[in-house]
Amino acid sequence: MNHKPLLLITNDDGYDAPGIRHLIDFVKEMGDLIVVAPEYPQSGMGHAVTIATPLRIRPIVEENGYSEYACNGTPVDAVKLALDKVCPRKPDILLSGINHGTNFSINVIYSGTMGAAIEGALANIPSIGFSLNDFSRYADFFPAKKYIQAIVDNILKNPKPDNLCLNVNIPAVGENEIKGIKVCRQSIANWIEEYEERDDPHKRKYFWLTGTFNNTDNNSDTDAFALEHNYISVVPVTIDFTNHNQLQALKKRTFHV
Amino acid sequence: MNHKPLLLITNDDGYDAPGIRHLIDFVKEMGDLIVVAPEYPQSGMGHAVTIATPLRIRPIVEENGYSEYACNGTPVDAVKLALDKVCPRKPDILLSGINHGTNFSINVIYSGTMGAAIEGALANIPSIGFSLNDFSRYADFFPAKKYIQAIVDNILKNPKPDNLCLNVNIPAVGENEIKGIKVCRQSIANWIEEYEERDDPHKRKYFWLTGTFNNTDNNSDTDAFALEHNYISVVPVTIDFTNHNQLQALKKRTFHV
Repeated sequence: MNHKPLLLITNDDGYDAPGIRHLIDFVKEMGDLIVVAPEYPQSGMGHAVTIATPLRIRPIVEENGYSEYACNGTPVDAVKLALDKVCPRKPDILLSGINHGTNFSINVIYSGTMGAAIEGALANIPSIGFSLNDFSRYADFFPAKKYIQAIVDNILKNPKPDNLCLNVNIPAVGENEIKGIKVCRQSIANWIEEYEERDDPHKRKYFWLTGTFNNTDNNSDTDAFALEHNYISVVPVTIDFTNHNQLQALKKRTFHV
Repeated sequence: MNHKPLLLITNDDGYDAPGIRHLIDFVKEMGDLIVVAPEYPQSGMGHAVTIATPLRIRPIVEENGYSEYACNGTPVDAVKLALDKVCPRKPDILLSGINHGTNFSINVIYSGTMGAAIEGALANIPSIGFSLNDFSRYADFFPAKKYIQAIVDNILKNPKPDNLCLNVNIPAVGENEIKGIKVCRQSIANWIEEYEERDDPHKRKYFWLTGTFNNTDNNSDTDAFALEHNYISVVPVTIDFTNHNQLQALKKRTFHV
């Protein structure tokens, strides 16, 4: 009888990105692994699902205790397909990443890495998204290794409460500079758009998304603050999107129909 | 001097969908209108943004007090482009919809309609997503007219607090059957995937997304309950995705690095 935990692994940079290869390497001794990750990069896909086109899964490795598939959809599609068509039982944990680039603060909502993790939590699988503050293909993931292993081990041993979803962001510094792990809240921020305008060879305008991150909330209990001070930030993410702070005041309003 | 409010309008079904045409018709006397909506249907795109391909905007109408553009991106792209490149000033309100199909409960996270509304709230523009519980192209939007006008009027007159985002869902019933407007919280639910598996002419498998909505929370203070009882549900949506209920317990955990 097999008592090994089952780990479902995905990402948003594509199944062959260095980030997911390192994540697989870091956790491969912790249980049986099933990897279902996007065929192509899916950064910025948030919680998008594919409705109007059919999906496919391409097997890459199918061995005892380790299998790997590429899926032609979004990160959320990959999780949904994995749960319905690939996994022989409910995974004990879902790991997404390691993303090339941070997903702290409001980036949680644009992030395909975190979209996949939230989808896991909705299926009541404890889920963790990992992101490193370095966009480079040659980023150094190794300083994060023991911290990632500690967080995965902790959640595997104590996967409560229900619908647990963690947004873990890692500063891109050397191992000796990482100060530890800090559980914190999301800083309140937004992006200010600055689309770059160009003309195509036919003199028609097109626009590239660029922008400035506008963090107005750098309190010491936020993920922004933790990262800036070389801590690994851990934010529990909700699946209840109600603004409970606004609810009571809104209930008192009269809508004049 | 022009004291008219500026209304920014978008959706996820595409600029020519009956839902947005009705919304424009319902609010056209309430201020100056700028419509920037997707060129093509974008259902299920959630909060996705387009990073790797350039965006374009196609003018459709450009008149004094009313202009309309189609954008080749997601609903969130449409809002970002509208704010950066189209609107002469910050809009007084953002309206998204009317979506063909509901976005109550957890559907808020998959919904392009609500992705656009949340993006407006992040820019601190009071934002409302409207959805009708009828997927048909020939749905009857008229019973909702006076309720939509009442909600828009209420928020224009009292646009506080900051980052206001409302998820409004409308039952698909006759005008006399709508019981009123109910401010409520999101019901906790998820989708259980049931991909439909088919073989293509080359005997390769492909999958269509289908699923069963699994609502485990039908308390009387939820949007699910309100809709079921023919109320229009209004849920304030948060831009803070921290799970504050879980935060304190997680802070007490020791991660053994």
